Formats: sequence, structure tokens, C-alpha cells
Amino acid sequence: MTGPRQRLPRLAVTLGDPAGVGPELCLRLLAAAEQGRFSDCLPIIYGSAAVLRRVADAVAIPFTAPVLTDPAAASTPAVYDCAPVDAAGVLPGQVSAAAGAAAYRACITAISEAVAGAVDAIVTCPLNKEALHAAGHHYPGHTELFAERLEASRSCMLQYADDIACSFVTTHVGYADVPALLTAARIGEVLDLTDEALLRIRGQRPRLLVCGLNPHAGEHGLFGNHEEETVIAPAIVEARARGLDVTGPVPGDTAFTPQARQRYDAVVCMYHDQGHIPVKMIAFDRAVNITLGLSVPRTSVDHGTAFDIAWQGIADPGSLFQAVHLAARLAPMRG
Amino acid sequence: MTGPRQRLPRLAVTLGDPAGVGPELCLRLLAAAEQGRFSDCLPIIYGSAAVLRRVADAVAIPFTAPVLTDPAAASTPAVYDCAPVDAAGVLPGQVSAAAGAAAYRACITAISEAVAGAVDAIVTCPLNKEALHAAGHHYPGHTELFAERLEASRSCMLQYADDIACSFVTTHVGYADVPALLTAARIGEVLDLTDEALLRIRGQRPRLLVCGLNPHAGEHGLFGNHEEETVIAPAIVEARARGLDVTGPVPGDTAFTPQARQRYDAVVCMYHDQGHIPVKMIAFDRAVNITLGLSVPRTSVDHGTAFDIAWQGIADPGSLFQAVHLAARLAPMRG
Repeated sequence: MTGPRQRLPRLAVTLGDPAGVGPELCLRLLAAAEQGRFSDCLPIIYGSAAVLRRVADAVAIPFTAPVLTDPAAASTPAVYDCAPVDAAGVLPGQVSAAAGAAAYRACITAISEAVAGAVDAIVTCPLNKEALHAAGHHYPGHTELFAERLEASRSCMLQYADDIACSFVTTHVGYADVPALLTAARIGEVLDLTDEALLRIRGQRPRLLVCGLNPHAGEHGLFGNHEEETVIAPAIVEARARGLDVTGPVPGDTAFTPQARQRYDAVVCMYHDQGHIPVKMIAFDRAVNITLGLSVPRTSVDHGTAFDIAWQGIADPGSLFQAVHLAARLAPMRG
Repeated sequence: MTGPRQRLPRLAVTLGDPAGVGPELCLRLLAAAEQGRFSDCLPIIYGSAAVLRRVADAVAIPFTAPVLTDPAAASTPAVYDCAPVDAAGVLPGQVSAAAGAAAYRACITAISEAVAGAVDAIVTCPLNKEALHAAGHHYPGHTELFAERLEASRSCMLQYADDIACSFVTTHVGYADVPALLTAARIGEVLDLTDEALLRIRGQRPRLLVCGLNPHAGEHGLFGNHEEETVIAPAIVEARARGLDVTGPVPGDTAFTPQARQRYDAVVCMYHDQGHIPVKMIAFDRAVNITLGLSVPRTSVDHGTAFDIAWQGIADPGSLFQAVHLAARLAPMRG
């Protein structure tokens, strides 16, 4: 018997900004996949084959994967040449509208193909925001582009490594804008999304820990505007009533001690740096970004375009490899 | 030749709340000092000798240090019995006004003696805020008590361990109150205090790193209200003009990566959790709290009263021992 559940998950891996480290990371992925290191999935690079050839020459990574014009034809790791760009005009580390346009094209193609069922999940290499804007695409980043295109009614970011995982109630907003964005409904949503994702990744109900907002989680109202008592704690009570295993709110600075990290599977953070500081300390090159709540699972490397070292062949593919493995595990989650 | 610079620094070590772990930590300190492990200073415990005797019996730590009624008489590690309390009435882990009053008494005695020149620096064991308040002393904690009594015109908190150090522009205020408290003058003050202290501790001018406030340090104004450009960056420019070695503002989540920690000696943080999260991750039982800017150097353990394990003999004295060594190094800094 054969059927969609039996075949390997097909992953669209977008090239990211051609002037960044995306191309060399994709070449490393193809090389590793050809050596059999990705038996859990079939990765298909979405981007410009000409850029990959140029970078392969520059950094001396062999590029032998087939280049396809129809991703449905892929039966081995391959490149889907869907985002043409004048490769000779792309300069490593340089912002350009052409590169931004190509990066955008690879993304929306991957999204369309995923919606159509041609791929089961998407892994993204980093975009350059300025290049994206120069090309006329005014998104703060991947997350918003995906949420809009996939019409997600609820979504959140999860940063995941085997030894630390954080999801976020708010992410790319100013420090001062955070308190107004904290509602019990939003925190409940993030708790549910985190619970579902960890259950999928780990195979068992996760133990979730929730951070407070203020120093010492407010210390019984001594600091702050009682956000812990009026917003966070009620969301936790409701989540427990839905069967989730949730502890908190606890002071942010006690949530990531070695002891706490052993005891809990994921930490729900109120704002960007509350979770990004510990994740980058512990898992700088291993963490994966996952956008939860999308109809198509999407993971991403946890670093930027690294323009300063682009096309030198020294970028560490660890985060991309982790992102690919995680996407393979999440692929059956598609809605 | 003998003189005040030749003798060992004399340190007042306050007992903290008698119902917490302070007494057993002080007993461990006396025992270690008697074994010659503190050749850099002469520690004198400020507190109740009766409480120390009772805890010594409870946890089976020998208590052989002399009990004095005049700290000037100390020539070996000793106890200055300056904060009497009904020891039989103190229950481990219980908040009481009597315990709060004794803790307060030990503190203000240490401060007076330091001002009078009888001791060169102060090390504090943890207070219980509720007990302090029950005794009628309405301070949020040690820092404010010391700042008021010593009439400090500028002060800030430094959390210090050999491998991570953070100073704070704001500390015990609500999350939402932070932006309004950030001024270039205050940041400059904290930069100066941090530079002076690290110079003293390390013996050379420190390389300071300054965090931004917003995610990605605002990403060129994309997130937040331009606090990085209008407040933080100008303070850094001014500090450099004064000769300080300062880098930033950088995103909070890049300031504590293993690479950054090798490159910089201290990180100046805008708010409590920005620095407390990484310090507690890396140096949970080793970090020391230092109040900078006081006329008398003051260090403190970096943990609370730990009422849940008080009087069981299992509290780790590591942070107290570090606090004592640091106070010995800072003692000559007194103004």
C-alpha cells in the first residue's frame, strides 16, 4: 500500500536573500542530503539555480543536485529554479532590490505550492529586510508574510532547541508596547499553540512554564501594574482547565536556571528578549524558529543573513539542519 | 611601619533575617575563616549570637568564634552581638516582626560602624521584606536602606561573577515604568560607576557593552520609540569622550552569547530581567550583588532568605563567600 502518509515529507527550503549565507547553507544541505543525512525528508531548494552555481564555485562546495522546473518531479534532493535573478549582479553582503525580489519570489512560490499540497512544510533561510523593502514588499519579516498569505487566525513564534524552547506572546514590537498587548486570550492562544507543537515534537504533553512581566513577577503587586494577577494568572487557570500542564507566572530570571530547564519542556515568554536572551546564550547555532498556528508548518534558521561572512563558506549550517529535521517532524501537522 | 592601609580589611557581615538561611551561612563563613580560607579580610558577623548558637545546634556546625560587645576588639573572625532577639521565638521560615527588627538593627549598626570607620565594607545576608515591613521599616530592600542612610547621590546595582557581570540602569521598578526612567544622564552615571568598580576589581579598564531597550536594539527605529538613538547612544558617546571603553547599544539577545561574554567585562542593562536572566543562568550560586556608588562598599549574596530550606544546613554558602572576597577587594574604595 502506498499513499500520502507513507512517503517522506517533502520540504520546500527557501534560499533566502541570495547575497546572504542562504545559498551556501542550502548547498551544504544538498550535499548532506545526498550523503543520506536526511532520511526523514525530501528537501527541495526553492530559489535561483544560477545563484547556487555561482556560490558553489566561490566556496568550492560541489553542486550536483538536479535542477527542476516542476517540484512535483523531485524524487531526490533537488533545486526548484523558481526565483530567477541575474546571478552575476548579486554581490555578497550587498543589499539589492533584485535580491529582495528573488527572496520574496521563492517564499511566495513555496507558500503556494504548500497550499496546493506539493510540499508538506517550509523551511526558510534568512531574508534581508531592507532588500525586501527595496523590492517593494513591506513585511517586517517572514512571520508576517506567512501569516498574511496563509490567513492564520492565530500564530506565534516558537524558538526550539532540544535543551531550551521558548514561545512568545509578543515578539517584534517596541518594549513599551508590550503591556497593552498582553491579554488572557492571547496568552491562552500561545499556551495552546505551544502545547500542540511540543506534543507533536516530543510525543508527550509538555510541562509549560510561564514567565511574569515584571521583576520578581511583580512580587505580589510590589512592582508593576498587577499584570501577573490580572492577565497572566487567569490565562494559566483557564489553560489548566483545558487540561494543559502549566506552571507560573514565575519571575523571568528563575525560568531559565539549569534546574528549571530540566523541569520544564518550554517557557512561554511575554516579550522578545525575555526568551531570546536565554536561547541565544544556550543554543546560538542550534535553535530553530517555528511559526506555530499556520496551516503549513514553517521552520526557519535562528540567525540572520550574516552579510559579513556571506559566500565565504564558513557559515555554520547547524541551525538549518535542525530546522529541516524539525520541519520533517512537524509536516504531518498541516491543517 | 603599620597603618590603616597595612591591616586586613575589616568586614561587617550582617546576619540577615534570623529565620532564613543567613545564620547558617554566617556559621559556614566563620568555620571557613577559622580554617584560614579568608586570608584577605577579617569578617565580623553583625547579628544575634543567641540565634547563631541555636542554628549551630540545629545544623551541627561548630560555633567557636568569640562573641564581642565591641567590634573594635576583633582581631580574629568574630560575632558582634548587636541585634538581640528572642532566639527561642524565632521559627525557621516564619515571617515575624521580631526577626525583621533584628535584621534591620544589624544593618543600621553595620552602616553606623562603617561610617565611623570601625569596618571597611559591609556584606549583607538576605532580608525578608515582609518581616522588615512588619517591624515598621518600609524599605523595598537593602539597596534603598543603604542609599538613604549613606546619602548616596548616585548608585546602582552590579551583579558580579568572574564570568559574567551586569550593572543596571533601572532595577526594582515595574516593566512599564522603565522607559520613562531612561535618561542619558542616568546611563552615564551607571557607566561611570561600572567602569570604576570593574577597574577596582579587575585592575584594568573594563570593556563595557551596553544593551538597547527594544528587540534588535530597535533595528534602526523599526521597533520602539527610538530610545536607542535618542537616549542610549548619546550617553555612550559622552562616556567615550570621558575615556571609557564602551560598545553599544546592542540587542539584548546578542550581549550574552559565549562570544560576547569573552569579549566584554561587563554589560550595562536597561532593566532588571535583561541582566538577571543571564546572570542566574550562568552563575546562580556564585553571583554577588554589589551596590555601587556608596561611601562604604557593600556586597550581598545574590539569593533570598530561602525560607523553604532555612536551618537545615543545606544552603550553599558559595555566594556569601564570593561576596566576602569581593568586599575585601572593594574595601579600599570607600569614599
